[in-house]
Amino acid sequence: MTTDTYGALVSKQREIKLLGGVSGLLGWDQETYMPHKAGEVRAEQLALLAGLIHDRVAAPEIGDLLGKLEKGALEPGKAAVVRETRRVFDREVKIPKELVEEMARTTSRAQEAWAKARKEKDFPSFAPWLEKVIDLKKRAAKLLALPGQDLYDALLDDYEPGCTVKELTALFEGLEKKLVPLVKKIQASSKKPRIDVLERNYPRAKQEEFGRLVAADMGFDFEGGRLDVSAHPFCSGLSPDDVRITTRYAENDLTGSLFGIMHEAGHGLYEQGLDRTHFGTPLAEACSTGVHESQSRLWENMVGRSRPFWKHYYPKLRGVFPDQLADVPEEDFLLAVNDVRPSFIRTEADEVTYNLHVLLRFEVERDLLSGKLRVNDLPAFWNKKLEKLLGIVPPDDSQGCLQDIHWSFGLFAYFPTYTLGNCYAAQFYAKARGELDLDARLARGDLKPLREWLRKNVHERGQLYRPKELVERVTGKPPSSEAFTSYLEAKYGALFGF
Amino acid sequence: MTTDTYGALVSKQREIKLLGGVSGLLGWDQETYMPHKAGEVRAEQLALLAGLIHDRVAAPEIGDLLGKLEKGALEPGKAAVVRETRRVFDREVKIPKELVEEMARTTSRAQEAWAKARKEKDFPSFAPWLEKVIDLKKRAAKLLALPGQDLYDALLDDYEPGCTVKELTALFEGLEKKLVPLVKKIQASSKKPRIDVLERNYPRAKQEEFGRLVAADMGFDFEGGRLDVSAHPFCSGLSPDDVRITTRYAENDLTGSLFGIMHEAGHGLYEQGLDRTHFGTPLAEACSTGVHESQSRLWENMVGRSRPFWKHYYPKLRGVFPDQLADVPEEDFLLAVNDVRPSFIRTEADEVTYNLHVLLRFEVERDLLSGKLRVNDLPAFWNKKLEKLLGIVPPDDSQGCLQDIHWSFGLFAYFPTYTLGNCYAAQFYAKARGELDLDARLARGDLKPLREWLRKNVHERGQLYRPKELVERVTGKPPSSEAFTSYLEAKYGALFGF
Repeated sequence: MTTDTYGALVSKQREIKLLGGVSGLLGWDQETYMPHKAGEVRAEQLALLAGLIHDRVAAPEIGDLLGKLEKGALEPGKAAVVRETRRVFDREVKIPKELVEEMARTTSRAQEAWAKARKEKDFPSFAPWLEKVIDLKKRAAKLLALPGQDLYDALLDDYEPGCTVKELTALFEGLEKKLVPLVKKIQASSKKPRIDVLERNYPRAKQEEFGRLVAADMGFDFEGGRLDVSAHPFCSGLSPDDVRITTRYAENDLTGSLFGIMHEAGHGLYEQGLDRTHFGTPLAEACSTGVHESQSRLWENMVGRSRPFWKHYYPKLRGVFPDQLADVPEEDFLLAVNDVRPSFIRTEADEVTYNLHVLLRFEVERDLLSGKLRVNDLPAFWNKKLEKLLGIVPPDDSQGCLQDIHWSFGLFAYFPTYTLGNCYAAQFYAKARGELDLDARLARGDLKPLREWLRKNVHERGQLYRPKELVERVTGKPPSSEAFTSYLEAKYGALFGF
Repeated sequence: MTTDTYGALVSKQREIKLLGGVSGLLGWDQETYMPHKAGEVRAEQLALLAGLIHDRVAAPEIGDLLGKLEKGALEPGKAAVVRETRRVFDREVKIPKELVEEMARTTSRAQEAWAKARKEKDFPSFAPWLEKVIDLKKRAAKLLALPGQDLYDALLDDYEPGCTVKELTALFEGLEKKLVPLVKKIQASSKKPRIDVLERNYPRAKQEEFGRLVAADMGFDFEGGRLDVSAHPFCSGLSPDDVRITTRYAENDLTGSLFGIMHEAGHGLYEQGLDRTHFGTPLAEACSTGVHESQSRLWENMVGRSRPFWKHYYPKLRGVFPDQLADVPEEDFLLAVNDVRPSFIRTEADEVTYNLHVLLRFEVERDLLSGKLRVNDLPAFWNKKLEKLLGIVPPDDSQGCLQDIHWSFGLFAYFPTYTLGNCYAAQFYAKARGELDLDARLARGDLKPLREWLRKNVHERGQLYRPKELVERVTGKPPSSEAFTSYLEAKYGALFGF
C-alpha cells in the first residue's frame, strides 16, 4: 500500500513539475523573445499558472498522502521525498491562492517597470513597484513565520532551508574582516593588470563561438539545452532535458559573456545532471539555491579564472582573436581576468569584492523587511554603505540600487545564497582537486571528469540531504567560509606577489 | 442579473484563452527553439494543458451560465458570444478528457516522428503514428457526430462551422473543371517565365530584411509580434498583442520566404486586428479557419503576386539584390513569380494548381476516415491521383504524402479550408478593389488602407457572424468559387496572352 501511496504522491508531483516547466518557459520567453506589448497578458498567464501550481502543491490530497506515508518506515530516498514535500506543503498551505496570484502578477509587471527604470536611471519610477513587492513579501513572511521566527528567516527557507539571519550575519562579519584587507593588499601590489586588453573590439559572433566551445567542453548538452541572449543572464531548468541558459555580449568586453556562459552552464550542468528517474520529486530537484550557486561560481571562478584552465584555452582564444591578443602574453591575460578592484556592478565584480556586494544587499533586504529602512531612502543607504565597503560611490542608481533584477522578481532573501555558494564551491573544489589531479586535467582541457565528480557527489543526489548535510558528506566538513578565504588568499597572494 | 451572468461567462472565457495562449507558446517554442531532447516532456506538458483547457471549456458552470443567458434577450454581440460558446460547449462535453489528453500527447510525438520520416523519406516509419492519429480522430468524430451526420462533417465543424462534405465535393468538382483546362492553357502559352532568375544566390539576411520591410508596410506590428524560422511556416496568435509568424529561407529561392512571410503576416494582421475589449470571447476569435486563410492568401497572392504591388516593390527589391536582378526587367520578374506549372509541394504551388493539391488531400482524408483507404495504401493513392490531376508523380514520399505537417498535428478536415479561403479572398478582394482604388494605392506601396478595410470588415467582427453570413454581409454575395475562377482567368489570360 505504501508503494501505491508513494506512487500517487509522485504522480501529483510530476504534474506540478510539468506546470512549473510551463511557467518556466513563460518566464524564459519573457526575458528572451517575447514582443514588448505582450507584457500584460503574460503577467495574467503567469498569475494563472502560479495559482494552478499553488492549488496542487497545497492540495488536501497531498496532506493525506503525506500523513499515510509518514506512518510507515521508508528507505532513505523516499523518506527524503516525504520530508521535503512535507516542508513545502506546510509552507504553501499558509499562503492564500490570491496572494500567490497577486505576487506573480505584480512581479511580472514589476520586471517591466524595473527594466525601464534601470534604462532611464529613474529610481523613483520603480520605487512604488518595489514597495508593492515588499508589502507582498512581508505578508507572505508573516504567514510563513513560525512562532518567534524572524521574518527574514521565514523567507530564507524558500532558498536555503534551515539557514538563519544569525548565521549569515556571522558569516558576513567574518568575510568582511578578511576581504576588506585583502582588497587593500591587492590594490597596493605593484602588479597592475592590463585590463584594457579585454576592452578591445571583440566581435559578438566570435565571442559566442568561443563561449559555446567552452560550454560544450564542460559537458553542457546542447541537444537538451540552449544558449540565448537576455538583459540579465540566467539559467532556467524546465526539465533535465530542457535547460536554457542566457548571456549578454558587449563588443568591447571579451570576458563578460564568457564568464557569464560558464556561470550559467555551471547551473545548467546541475539541472541536466538531476536524476531523470525521479523527475518531479525532490530527489530530482537541486538541494538548495546556495548549492546551485556553488556550481555556477565553481565553474566561473575556480575553473574559469584559474591558471591551468587558461594554459589550455588561451592558445585557443588567441586562435579566435589573433589580432586583438597578439601583444598579450598568457601571464598578462591571466592577471587581467583576475583583476581585483572596487566596482559598481555585482555581476561584473571580481571574486574578492563580490561578496561585499552581497553583504550590502543582505543588509538592505534585512532592513527593508524589518521596516528600519524605507524604500525612498534606499539609494542613499546603498551609496553610503558601498562607500564604506569599497570606497566608491555609484554615479547613478542604475549602477547602484537599480542594477539587479531580483527584487522585481520577488526574490527577497535570495542574495545571501550567492555567498553561501562561494563558500560551498570552495569546499567542493578543494575536495575534487584532492581526488582528481584536477590541475593537470584542466591544463589539458579535460573538463569532463570534474563534471562527473560533481554529478556523482552533488547533482544526482537532488534533495536526498539538506544543504549542510550534503556539504559535510561530500567534503567531510560543515559549511564555513574557511576554504573560501584560504582559496582567495592563496590564489591572489600568488598572482599579486604577497 | 444578465450582466453579472454574462460577466461570469466572460471571466471564465478569459481564463481559457490565457491557457490557450500558454499552450500556443509551448507549440510555438516546439517548432522554433525547443532543444531536441525536450520532446517527451513537452508532449506531457501539452497533454496536461489540453486537459486543463478541456475541463474549463466543458465545465458544468459554463452550461449553467449559458442556460441562464439563453432565457433572456441579448444584444447581437452578446448573442453571438452565447451562440458560439454553446456550439463549442455542446461539442466539448461529448469528448472525454482522457481522449483530449491522448490526442495532445500523441500529436506532439507524431510531429517529431513526421519530421524525422520526412527528412529520411521514410513513410513506413510514420505510418503507425498516422494510424494512431486517425483512430483518435475517428473516435472523436463518432462522439461528435449528430444522428446521421457524416463523420467528416463532424470534424469540419471544428474549422468551418456549417460546411459539409457535400458542399465541398461540389466546390472541388467545379474547380477541377475550370482549373485543369486553365493549367493546360497556360502551359501551352508561348510565354515561358524565366523562373531560374529566382533561383540565383540570395543571401538569407537580405531576404529577411526585405520580408520584414514588406510585413511592416502591410501593418504587421513587430512591437506585438515576431518573425522567426521554422521547418513549416505558421502563425500563432497567443493574444492580439503577441502574434508570432515564422518562415523558412533557402538561399537559392528568392520568393519562397517572402511569400511565406506575406502569407503568415496576413494571418497575423487578422490576429492583431481582433477586438481587444472582447479578449477571450468569440467576439475576439477569428470567424473560421477558412476566413483566416482568406486573409493569408489575399496578401500572399492577390496583393503579393500582382502587377501594381511589384510596380512599387520591384525597384526596392532590386536595391537589395542589385547584382542578382540586374538583367531581370520588371515584366520578366512579374511573370516569374506567376509561373504556373504542375509541381509536387503544395506550399510552393502556384495559385492555379494549388487547389488541385487541396482537392487531393480532401479525397485522401475523406477516404481514410471512412475506411475506404488504408494508411499503407496512401502513397500509391496519392501518386496516382496527383498524376491524374497534374500529370506528374512524386519521386519520393517526402515530396508526396509526407510533405505536410497537418495530420501529425491531428488536423483532419482542415485542408479544404485553404480552398475556401481562396474563394472568400477573391470575393473580399473584388469588393475592396471596388471601394478603395486599390491598384493605384498598391502601386504607391500604400498597403495600409487595405489592412484597415479588412480590419473593419473582417478582423474586428470576430465571430459576430458565421462564415457564410460574414462573406455575404461584406461582399453582398454568398460564398462561391465564381469570383476566384474569374480572378484567375482574367489575371492569367492577361499575363500569358490568351
